[in-house]
Amino acid sequence: MLDAALELFAHRVPEDVSLDDVAEAAGVSRPLVYRYVPGGKQQLYEAALRSAAEDLEHCFAEPPEGPLTQRLSRALDRYLAFVGEHDAGFSALLQGGSVVGTSRTTAIVDGVRRAAAGHILRHLDVAEPGPRLRMTVRMWITAVEAASLIWLDEDKEPPLDELRDWLVEQFVACLVATAARDAQTAEVVRAALAMETADGPIGTLARQVLPVVGDAAHLL
Amino acid sequence: MLDAALELFAHRVPEDVSLDDVAEAAGVSRPLVYRYVPGGKQQLYEAALRSAAEDLEHCFAEPPEGPLTQRLSRALDRYLAFVGEHDAGFSALLQGGSVVGTSRTTAIVDGVRRAAAGHILRHLDVAEPGPRLRMTVRMWITAVEAASLIWLDEDKEPPLDELRDWLVEQFVACLVATAARDAQTAEVVRAALAMETADGPIGTLARQVLPVVGDAAHLL
Repeated sequence: MLDAALELFAHRVPEDVSLDDVAEAAGVSRPLVYRYVPGGKQQLYEAALRSAAEDLEHCFAEPPEGPLTQRLSRALDRYLAFVGEHDAGFSALLQGGSVVGTSRTTAIVDGVRRAAAGHILRHLDVAEPGPRLRMTVRMWITAVEAASLIWLDEDKEPPLDELRDWLVEQFVACLVATAARDAQTAEVVRAALAMETADGPIGTLARQVLPVVGDAAHLL
Repeated sequence: MLDAALELFAHRVPEDVSLDDVAEAAGVSRPLVYRYVPGGKQQLYEAALRSAAEDLEHCFAEPPEGPLTQRLSRALDRYLAFVGEHDAGFSALLQGGSVVGTSRTTAIVDGVRRAAAGHILRHLDVAEPGPRLRMTVRMWITAVEAASLIWLDEDKEPPLDELRDWLVEQFVACLVATAARDAQTAEVVRAALAMETADGPIGTLARQVLPVVGDAAHLL
């Protein structure tokens, strides 16, 4: 029954999912749904959301090996695949104003954000991340959510792998900008760059950025 | 009465504002509140929110003169002052799960986001902004919201002017990263950098970033 609910809530806005739909998809009677889920649609929605949140948190797990951009790319690949598979439900959830949105659903979504931030900070390998590094990571996570919503809204354009690479580049850019005013982030950036290779994403980004900023020698 | 409601909804979560509070703050009787606002608290909240949204949109207006970073700084100054003055209400609104959150309140908030994006794109002076430039601007706006919420949560640390400068730097960094894969954004960045001066924020940022990335010559 939970599988059926998950599937329905993934592809429709919550308003368009009825308990009759869930009963039919699960091949059970409506009274049986109510016996197992006395809280009705709201309870079923929250159970489906908790299950989806667990799946999503698994997307972020990545062994702490190799260049950071590779690890981030792999996690983003899984995250964007998840977003693509839960399109209507993902949009409805994050856009708010849904009839099933409560402080409990907000708490579940926030838990996923915190888990994502925790994973990233562990990969950045700092024992006690300071406020600027934490804020940078959380800002980027929110920006990724915004990009995901726009991506769904624009029929999944650009293609997943392009969006993924771009989001990785945005992360590097945000970290570098924060490094200008935060010694801890500067150390993180130095350590991260040392692991990258010229044919990797940061090498490519650096070579593409230089001609754009090259005319701005008057700023140095 | 609307002024009283605005003031109350700015500094408390909606759950903690009653129509009795509004009546008392406005110096009128509770029946009178209901005569003017038959929809009760929900209607009053939405009216207060619409009024706050209008104020906020005024924050973004800025004459199209001088370096872009100066214009953005002035708009962010006003925005962050607004956030600081509407602390509890701002957090409750954007964190979702509030009892007064509906598809209408979501639409009002989205209208403010769209207005902010429109202002920025007009300052970037492109006739028809493409999808990458638009996505970059919308991602940064969401990141600013996230930073504002964290800022309120951390008792307005760092100080407003530091946060403002940092957010401007993040915007520049995000634009530069997008410029690496988007010709239109590259043109925008070139034009923007040409207007900046060495003692301005981008000059300072560039001089602080160079030593951090200077060891990464192996990437070029």
